[in-house]
Amino acid sequence: MQIHTTIAAMQKASAATRRSGQTLGFVPTMGAIHQGHLSLVRAARAQCDVVAASIFVNPLQFAPTEDLDRYPRPFEQDVALLRSEGVEHLFAPTPQEMYPAGATTFVEVAGLSERLDGASRPGHFRGVATVVSKLFHIVQPTAAFFGQKDAAQLAVLRALVRDQNFPIRIIGCPIVREPDGLAMSSRNRFLSPSERAAALTLSRALHDVAVLPNATPDRLRTFLIEAIRQAPSLRLDYAEIVDPETLLPAQDLNRPTLVAIAAWSGATRLIDNAILAPVTNVAAEEPELCHHV
Amino acid sequence: MQIHTTIAAMQKASAATRRSGQTLGFVPTMGAIHQGHLSLVRAARAQCDVVAASIFVNPLQFAPTEDLDRYPRPFEQDVALLRSEGVEHLFAPTPQEMYPAGATTFVEVAGLSERLDGASRPGHFRGVATVVSKLFHIVQPTAAFFGQKDAAQLAVLRALVRDQNFPIRIIGCPIVREPDGLAMSSRNRFLSPSERAAALTLSRALHDVAVLPNATPDRLRTFLIEAIRQAPSLRLDYAEIVDPETLLPAQDLNRPTLVAIAAWSGATRLIDNAILAPVTNVAAEEPELCHHV
Repeated sequence: MQIHTTIAAMQKASAATRRSGQTLGFVPTMGAIHQGHLSLVRAARAQCDVVAASIFVNPLQFAPTEDLDRYPRPFEQDVALLRSEGVEHLFAPTPQEMYPAGATTFVEVAGLSERLDGASRPGHFRGVATVVSKLFHIVQPTAAFFGQKDAAQLAVLRALVRDQNFPIRIIGCPIVREPDGLAMSSRNRFLSPSERAAALTLSRALHDVAVLPNATPDRLRTFLIEAIRQAPSLRLDYAEIVDPETLLPAQDLNRPTLVAIAAWSGATRLIDNAILAPVTNVAAEEPELCHHV
Repeated sequence: MQIHTTIAAMQKASAATRRSGQTLGFVPTMGAIHQGHLSLVRAARAQCDVVAASIFVNPLQFAPTEDLDRYPRPFEQDVALLRSEGVEHLFAPTPQEMYPAGATTFVEVAGLSERLDGASRPGHFRGVATVVSKLFHIVQPTAAFFGQKDAAQLAVLRALVRDQNFPIRIIGCPIVREPDGLAMSSRNRFLSPSERAAALTLSRALHDVAVLPNATPDRLRTFLIEAIRQAPSLRLDYAEIVDPETLLPAQDLNRPTLVAIAAWSGATRLIDNAILAPVTNVAAEEPELCHHV
C-alpha cells in the first residue's frame, strides 16, 4: 500500500491509474477504521480494479463545540487494517495540506444540508461537501463508497454529485452492526459499559418500529421518541421519518422511507437508521448488495 | 466540430479524449463570440492537443435586474467562428440541462467573490464558480483559458481551482482590443455610436494612468474617477487599485498591481483593466503570452 501525504502525490498516482484504463474505487474515511469501513473497502474491491482510501479528520465539518480534538486517530492500526485488505493507495494529508492559509472556497448543498444531522449541526454538511469535493478532485475515482449509516450525508453527497456533474458513481453500502445490533461507529469506543447498553435502544427501536401495526409516519415517530424516552440515560437529538433522497418528512409509507434517529449517550452522539419498504410489502431488510445512484 | 447538447454526450467525448492520452484545452464562453474569445481558442490550440469550447449563458450569474434576457445569442454565427478555428468539441446545453429542477448545490469563493464586480453584482461570482465547477466536471480539461479582461473572475477561478484542487491549469490571456483601444466585449454591440465614443474613456484612462508621475494607489484611483467624471454620459461603477490575486486594495505599487474600472455607458455595463508593473520598472505592457497559475 502506497501512503500519500501530499495532494500532488495522490493526484499523480490517481492520474496514472486512470491513464492505464483501470477503474478506481474510493473509500473516504476519518480513520478509526472498523468493520463498517472495511465493508466499503471490500465493496470497492469487488467493483473496481484499484482501491484507494483516505484518512482525514476534516476540521471543517466540526463545530467549535464538537469533538474534533478527541476524535480517535489510531493511525498505525488503521494502516494495518487497510493494508490487510489490499488497499493500493492511502491518502492521509495533514489539515495544513488540505486547508492552507487563505483557502476560502466552500461547496454547499442548500436545503438538504439543513435537515436531520444538518439541523443539529449547522455547517456540518457544508464541511462535508467541501472536503468530499476536494477529495474527488484529488483521488479522481470512478466510484466512491459510503455507508448507509450516515444516511443524511449520503443524500447530501448524491445531490452534490448529481448537481455538480461529477463523473463519479456514489455507492451506498449497508450498515454493519455489532452482534447485539449496535451500528458500528468510530465513536462507539467512547461509550462506557452503561452508555453502550443504553445505546442499544437505537437499533432495538429501529427493529421494533419496522413491524409496528397500522404504521403511519406520525406513529413511527411517536414510537421512536417514546423508546428513547424510556432509556433515561439517552437524550434524543432527532427522530425523523423522511424521504431518503430529499430528507423531507414522509407524507405516507407508500414508498421506501428513511427512519432515522440520533441520540446522545453520555457525551457521545450516536446515529442509526433503517429504510422501510412500502407497507404493502414485508418490512425491508437492508439490501445485501451495495446499490448505486 | 462535434456539438454536444447533453452533459452525458460531452462527458463521453471528454473521457475518450483523455483516455487516448491527449491533452484537452477548454474555452468556456457565454457565446456572442468575438476576437477575444478566438484568442483564447488559439492559445488553447497552441498548448493542447484537442480544443473544446462551451456556449452557455449562465442564468445563475445574472441578478433578476440584469440583462439575462437581452444577452446576445447569435448561435449560428458562433458555431461558424468556432468551426473556422478548428475547435473539435462544442458543449452547448440548455439551461434545463444544466439546472434541472431540484438542483441546489452552490460553489462559493468567499471573500474574493465580494470584491470588484462581486461588490456591484451580489451573487454573480457564486453563479460563476458554480457553473465553471460544473463545466470542469463535464469537460474534464487539462487546461482552461480565460480572458484577463474579467480580472476579478480570473482571480475567483484561480482561487477555486487552488482551493478545490482541480487537476486543471488556469491560463489567463491578454485583453484583445478594437483598433481604437476599446476592450472587446459581447456587450459592445449594445452601444450606440455616442455611447461607444464615451466608452473609449475607459481604455484611455487606463493608458494614461500607467504613465502618471508620482503614482500612488490613491492618486491612480483619483485620476480614474476624475477621468470618468469628465465623460458626462458615463456612470462610474468602480475604480480600484488592487492586488491581482486577492483583489484587496494595493498599499503601494511595489509589485504588479491590477488597475480595474467598471462604468455604465447608457444601459450597458463595461469593464476594463490593466496590470501595472512595479514603479521601479517601466509601466507594464500586457504580456504577449498567456501565463499560467
